[in-house]
Amino acid sequence: MKPLIVAALTLLSIGSTTQDTPDSRVQRVVADARFGAAMAAIDRDHDRLVSEIIKLTEIPAPPFMEEKRGAAYLEMLRAHKLADVERDEIGNVMGIRRGTGPAGGPLVAIVAHLDTVFPEGTDVTVKRAGTRLTAPGVGDNSRSLAVLLAMLRAMDETGIRTATDILFVGDVGEEGLGDLRGTKFLLQKGKYKDRIKQFIAVDGSGDGGSIANGAVASKRYRATFKGPGGHSYGAFGLVNPAFAMGAAMQKFSAITVPAAPKTTFNVGVVGGGTSVNSIPFETWMEVDMRSESPLELEKVETQFLMIVKQAVADENKVRSTKEGALTVDAKPVGDRPGGQTPANSPIVQIAMASAKAAGATPSLSFGSTDANIPISMGIPAVRVASGGRGDRAHALEEWIDVEKPASLRGIRALMATLIALAELRPTEAGSSAPARR
Amino acid sequence: MKPLIVAALTLLSIGSTTQDTPDSRVQRVVADARFGAAMAAIDRDHDRLVSEIIKLTEIPAPPFMEEKRGAAYLEMLRAHKLADVERDEIGNVMGIRRGTGPAGGPLVAIVAHLDTVFPEGTDVTVKRAGTRLTAPGVGDNSRSLAVLLAMLRAMDETGIRTATDILFVGDVGEEGLGDLRGTKFLLQKGKYKDRIKQFIAVDGSGDGGSIANGAVASKRYRATFKGPGGHSYGAFGLVNPAFAMGAAMQKFSAITVPAAPKTTFNVGVVGGGTSVNSIPFETWMEVDMRSESPLELEKVETQFLMIVKQAVADENKVRSTKEGALTVDAKPVGDRPGGQTPANSPIVQIAMASAKAAGATPSLSFGSTDANIPISMGIPAVRVASGGRGDRAHALEEWIDVEKPASLRGIRALMATLIALAELRPTEAGSSAPARR
Repeated sequence: MKPLIVAALTLLSIGSTTQDTPDSRVQRVVADARFGAAMAAIDRDHDRLVSEIIKLTEIPAPPFMEEKRGAAYLEMLRAHKLADVERDEIGNVMGIRRGTGPAGGPLVAIVAHLDTVFPEGTDVTVKRAGTRLTAPGVGDNSRSLAVLLAMLRAMDETGIRTATDILFVGDVGEEGLGDLRGTKFLLQKGKYKDRIKQFIAVDGSGDGGSIANGAVASKRYRATFKGPGGHSYGAFGLVNPAFAMGAAMQKFSAITVPAAPKTTFNVGVVGGGTSVNSIPFETWMEVDMRSESPLELEKVETQFLMIVKQAVADENKVRSTKEGALTVDAKPVGDRPGGQTPANSPIVQIAMASAKAAGATPSLSFGSTDANIPISMGIPAVRVASGGRGDRAHALEEWIDVEKPASLRGIRALMATLIALAELRPTEAGSSAPARR
Repeated sequence: MKPLIVAALTLLSIGSTTQDTPDSRVQRVVADARFGAAMAAIDRDHDRLVSEIIKLTEIPAPPFMEEKRGAAYLEMLRAHKLADVERDEIGNVMGIRRGTGPAGGPLVAIVAHLDTVFPEGTDVTVKRAGTRLTAPGVGDNSRSLAVLLAMLRAMDETGIRTATDILFVGDVGEEGLGDLRGTKFLLQKGKYKDRIKQFIAVDGSGDGGSIANGAVASKRYRATFKGPGGHSYGAFGLVNPAFAMGAAMQKFSAITVPAAPKTTFNVGVVGGGTSVNSIPFETWMEVDMRSESPLELEKVETQFLMIVKQAVADENKVRSTKEGALTVDAKPVGDRPGGQTPANSPIVQIAMASAKAAGATPSLSFGSTDANIPISMGIPAVRVASGGRGDRAHALEEWIDVEKPASLRGIRALMATLIALAELRPTEAGSSAPARR
């Protein structure tokens, strides 16, 4: 799993040997004086973290409209000591924190998505009550974006160097119909596509204990029901796409799915029709289905496709098709591959050891995040939370708690994971090796 | 039914006596040389009628956005010999064709609505194939607007005078959620509210035979389903307003209504949700219900309100309400009163006699048009078509045929009705009485 060039560098390194265990690698990081100083800096810098969370949250970033937040984040990245800070052609913004190895070597990518699920016009003002911040997108994913910057500052301030380059990314297209296009571009087309060998998606709140090494596969559809339309009174009796869609929604809502492997379904957005007194000529709904099991996902998908077809056939039977029959077009609009980074792989073991070292209880789970793409490509990847507590992601009442202890615990786990994966090095080669060496 | 002042004028008039039958009044009109000349002018002027239909159709006039078409129609009214051409504060545009009676007397109002059901952005380009014009709104109601102008020109050119003033109106708010606000304003608040004693709504295509003296009552609702919302995967299991709405749509689609008295129901517009991967916190649908019978309408309304309530209660039972329960708010957004202008009233009898005189077969029907308001207020009113053939109103494929014979037949019935109601007078008082007197 570890690429050759990293193996080669490892031989030159002072901190790791081929006998290293994940635990010992993490222990070396958290015991390093600079790591302690970095955590102290993050503690001291806490208010700035909070104000950057608020700043980012209050820049709307609806799906496909991440531009403004991306531009702001690009400027924030520029204010740190990064090389090649830039926006790529899909809209991801990023910069490299150079390691001690030769330029052009393998990278650890750490990414937080810029976009939210909330449409244009949503009030994104952050309401603060004590340590609780309430606003759409505040935890999913503004905190993560701000935590990346806080870690950068702390690592710079305390002279933490790593062998491997680290790519810090604010990416687009994680939510809604974005279909992970930011991460797909990064790993499949972007300039670093062949260099990214380890991948951390920072997403959501939590103390670092919940590590997602499994990628929930998902299928998304936009089903469009079309008919002749007409006057609600004059043409009464013609097939109505809203009626067929209603029947499909009702039936879809009643399917059964297993609790484990966790399998879910959703009607997320609906629309269509021109006026109250017209039979619509078109209605549509957007549907999301997910499962930890590809087999269960396929079952749900098959049922969904049968249900919409059947609903249209039924409506064509009970009402008149003399002006034309109803049709339905179920168009795939998202297909997130699933998979799993093996539990015994170094990245998972290091993330778990880091959580333990931060005082959290590690557990492995499934998620549906930017990590789906690397996982499906066989690139070792995990999703780790950004610290603290929070809930109600994707709801208007989304909130996070920014109380310090829980915030620091999460960041400690995350930063230990990042530095252990990128391999800690002395500040100046050979000159200021930490005492404990 | 006939107001005193009209009765008084009648005594002075040359063309009507208290023994007049509707038939004889219409016969006197259609036998008048000027009426024949006016129809000849409309025949000659046919291409202008068609080009004005196209011009008006291609100015979008979505519900509540009639301003541009209203402004254009105001200019078109100004180009004719009308007094007091103006736009009222609700957006109706109008002008008076003065009769021979004293100023400020009773009025015959002839109205055609400016608005269409089609939302902003709909392609309203008219596609022409032979005598067939296809475009959203072309028959409902651009033709009627253009026919009003064609009649005006023909009456002016041939010196047709009437005892009673005629108010020509292009009105707003007939369609969608407009809730007849244009006509309501005209009859309940506008400057002519106490003067309008007879009312003709010109609406849709047809040869003048179909006369609507009945007003279909309608009720309209916007039902909004609200819930806590949440992440489609993380919060799976929470109540989903789209599921409740789907169940309500499905059940509503299955209610039974009588064919006579004609009773209808429709889900016309649906919307809601923020993203495919979020449980919506809100979805909504707009519903239209109509009946010739107030009792049947009430039955449908009661069922609708029960169905949405029950759908929400069911969803609250089968899924989790731990973050909040679903609610539904069914808000009335339209209430068109019903009623009937008696079949034996002069306005209905004159419209039927005019249809017969034009070679059409008169029949009485129910409609839901601007005429609902005067009918509900006890003001004699009918809806008459604007001539020709057409179909698919409220559909994108709406079309009319502008072949001349059918167009002229409808206009002949309409113009005869209008002139007979306003009472034909000689061109110059006493000086040029038609030969047949």
